[in-house]
Amino acid sequence: MVFKLIEVIGRSNRDFTDAAKNAVEVAAKTVEEIRWVEVISFSMVVKEGKVVEYQAKTKIAFEVIRE
Amino acid sequence: MVFKLIEVIGRSNRDFTDAAKNAVEVAAKTVEEIRWVEVISFSMVVKEGKVVEYQAKTKIAFEVIRE
Amino acid sequence: MVFKLIEVIGRSNRDFTDAAKNAVEVAAKTVEEIRWVEVISFSMVVKEGKVVEYQAKTKIAFEVIRE
Amino acid sequence: MVFKLIEVIGRSNRDFTDAAKNAVEVAAKTVEEIRWVEVISFSMVVKEGKVVEYQAKTKIAFEVIRE
Amino acid sequence: MVFKLIEVIGRSNRDFTDAAKNAVEVAAKTVEEIRWVEVISFSMVVKEGKVVEYQAKTKIAFEVIRE
Amino acid sequence: MVFKLIEVIGRSNRDFTDAAKNAVEVAAKTVEEIRWVEVISFSMVVKEGKVVEYQAKTKIAFEVIRE
Amino acid sequence: MVFKLIEVIGRSNRDFTDAAKNAVEVAAKTVEEIRWVEVISFSMVVKEGKVVEYQAKTKIAFEVIRE
Amino acid sequence: MVFKLIEVIGRSNRDFTDAAKNAVEVAAKTVEEIRWVEVISFSMVVKEGKVVEYQAKTKIAFEVIRE
Amino acid sequence: MVFKLIEVIGRSNRDFTDAAKNAVEVAAKTVEEIRWVEVISFSMVVKEGKVVEYQAKTKIAFEVIRE
Amino acid sequence: MVFKLIEVIGRSNRDFTDAAKNAVEVAAKTVEEIRWVEVISFSMVVKEGKVVEYQAKTKIAFEVIRE
Amino acid sequence: MVFKLIEVIGRSNRDFTDAAKNAVEVAAKTVEEIRWVEVISFSMVVKEGKVVEYQAKTKIAFEVIRE
Amino acid sequence: MVFKLIEVIGRSNRDFTDAAKNAVEVAAKTVEEIRWVEVISFSMVVKEGKVVEYQAKTKIAFEVIRE
Repeated sequence: MVFKLIEVIGRSNRDFTDAAKNAVEVAAKTVEEIRWVEVISFSMVVKEGKVVEYQAKTKIAFEVIRE
Repeated sequence: MVFKLIEVIGRSNRDFTDAAKNAVEVAAKTVEEIRWVEVISFSMVVKEGKVVEYQAKTKIAFEVIRE
Repeated sequence: MVFKLIEVIGRSNRDFTDAAKNAVEVAAKTVEEIRWVEVISFSMVVKEGKVVEYQAKTKIAFEVIRE
Repeated sequence: MVFKLIEVIGRSNRDFTDAAKNAVEVAAKTVEEIRWVEVISFSMVVKEGKVVEYQAKTKIAFEVIRE
Repeated sequence: MVFKLIEVIGRSNRDFTDAAKNAVEVAAKTVEEIRWVEVISFSMVVKEGKVVEYQAKTKIAFEVIRE
Repeated sequence: MVFKLIEVIGRSNRDFTDAAKNAVEVAAKTVEEIRWVEVISFSMVVKEGKVVEYQAKTKIAFEVIRE
Repeated sequence: MVFKLIEVIGRSNRDFTDAAKNAVEVAAKTVEEIRWVEVISFSMVVKEGKVVEYQAKTKIAFEVIRE
Repeated sequence: MVFKLIEVIGRSNRDFTDAAKNAVEVAAKTVEEIRWVEVISFSMVVKEGKVVEYQAKTKIAFEVIRE
Repeated sequence: MVFKLIEVIGRSNRDFTDAAKNAVEVAAKTVEEIRWVEVISFSMVVKEGKVVEYQAKTKIAFEVIRE
Repeated sequence: MVFKLIEVIGRSNRDFTDAAKNAVEVAAKTVEEIRWVEVISFSMVVKEGKVVEYQAKTKIAFEVIRE
Repeated sequence: MVFKLIEVIGRSNRDFTDAAKNAVEVAAKTVEEIRWVEVISFSMVVKEGKVVEYQAKTKIAFEVIRE
Repeated sequence: MVFKLIEVIGRSNRDFTDAAKNAVEVAAKTVEEIRWVEVISFSMVVKEGKVVEYQAKTKIAFEVIRE
């Protein structure tokens, strides 16, 4: 029994917490047994002087039950 | 007169800002004269594909008045 | 045609996302063509045990059209 | 012909070497042609003042023969 | 809609740029919608005092359209 | 409810795992509710060409129940 | 007499060396007395499985003669 | 027998060495058996274009004799 | 109201503190409202086995009052 | 009187501690007065899904008595 | 049998790959059995707005057969 | 023509600048053509609550004229 780690960048037009939460929720569609998630970094996409997207680069740890 | 630094992980079920704020407010119960706080990293605890806790690892700087 | 990077610390009394957004919006007054922004770190200023300011250190990338 | 890298946390109740070895042996069940493995970090899980699990976060490099 | 990141080491007997390009082109056979690639590090394999292989460790970001 | 982190260097004349385990067991005498421990680095003390002590610098996380 | 440092991302469709060289040559149009340049990182922009742009993030040091 | 590490910022209006020395001397009032000290970073406080304080962030290692 | 950060290498033939102080004093000629300065690294220039220059790479933070 | 530092990778087919110890013992054949050793990183060589070699990259500090 | 690591900066007036290759080829004149080389960083020397030298800081690993 | 880098820890009972200077001057007895020196870190040795030695870990770059 081991943990695997994958890197996913979540995106949101609301805030950083929402971007990180989206990374987890999209990953949870294909990966079961997620246990914890580290945030590696945050970034923003800007258009015409306004922030149009918040991004959270995350490292998602999930348990590999049977392999 | 020096500053001391301690590491505290704040927790919240709302968002990252709230987790960091909690770290400070709990620390403030036993440590006076907190001046500034650096956030070291953020993480999340996940259960059944949902984020159930936001965590903020913080380094809290406080002034040592008399020692 | 190159990108230039400048470092700006945004400040807010609301939350970390707002602090980062402020960094961008103030920078946008003097720098056109901002494309993306990396958040380097977050910190907090504390007075009497309460967080009075959220700070986001950001690295802002903008395109240099004519130089 | 390239190498791919995956991150796996091996676990053991004996020691750090055993935890790292387990990461490799579990990965070897689904990935052929593993060549070398870097240890990223070690950690421990503690219950009632005793270490109950040793963990080794590893980055596993394997050759992609045909793709 | 999120980005995923995978780590691939490209190899070339010509130069570092070619090694990095190979990492992308091999990855592009199985992963669509690659957007950008960060180079993590470069290395070289040496035999009898001569460089026989250039390597580029890359982190490849691709968009996950439907999942 | 927060976690606190303290840094302790465990020492052993046997091996690195034993050094890390000692850090935890000595800390557990004065700190309850230790949850997990990260190993920051390992080192060795040498005398007359022989390793006489293994050291493990650890960061110990414990839960602060009432404060 | 001091040195100042600015960060510039050079771009090229040829290779990494050319991207770094472009950063310097564009900077040299507005900044005199450049002395040395550190490369911080390399990256690539990809479209339809092909590398379409090489980027070199550079830190450019120049001497401030009169200020 | 273990070592513990604490973080202290020493301050001086003379120079960096004095700031680091102050961190040690203040810590020595409450902690016995200090063995070695790593300097983590230096910083300066500026008022009206003049440096008014030198700071040395230090990590102080002391031996825990009986615990 | 934000802070901006610029990187300046101060130089001295006396010592490291003097090199860092020079970085600030030269910067203060063109930038008002400097608040704090982090030292990034120190280096030395050597000629014929003697140190002929001390250098301090600094990151200077100043408040942008009106922009 | 100064310390010098050299980097040596020790190898073992037993475990990480043994690999680090080997680095020291081989170095001790040509370098006297070794004082302490930092472990920089650990890695493993894998053949057919089995770990065949443990490696410890070490930085070895020795005192230069007469030079 | 151990590996030793030495740091060498290769130089070229052509490109980064050539600079790294030169580091290896000069080292190979005095050190046999070089196995692999990590590139630590790249830099450039600039004169009158033109790049006059490419540099590659490398860490060269060689096997110590008999010692 | 390449540069080589060696790591030396200079020691002084006066201050950090003196410790770094000593590293260079001792190295200069056996290595000609030293060009520049980076300071990696500073530390202090403490006895009975007093700093008894300042240390500067340095990386010394020298030109290899003929090899």
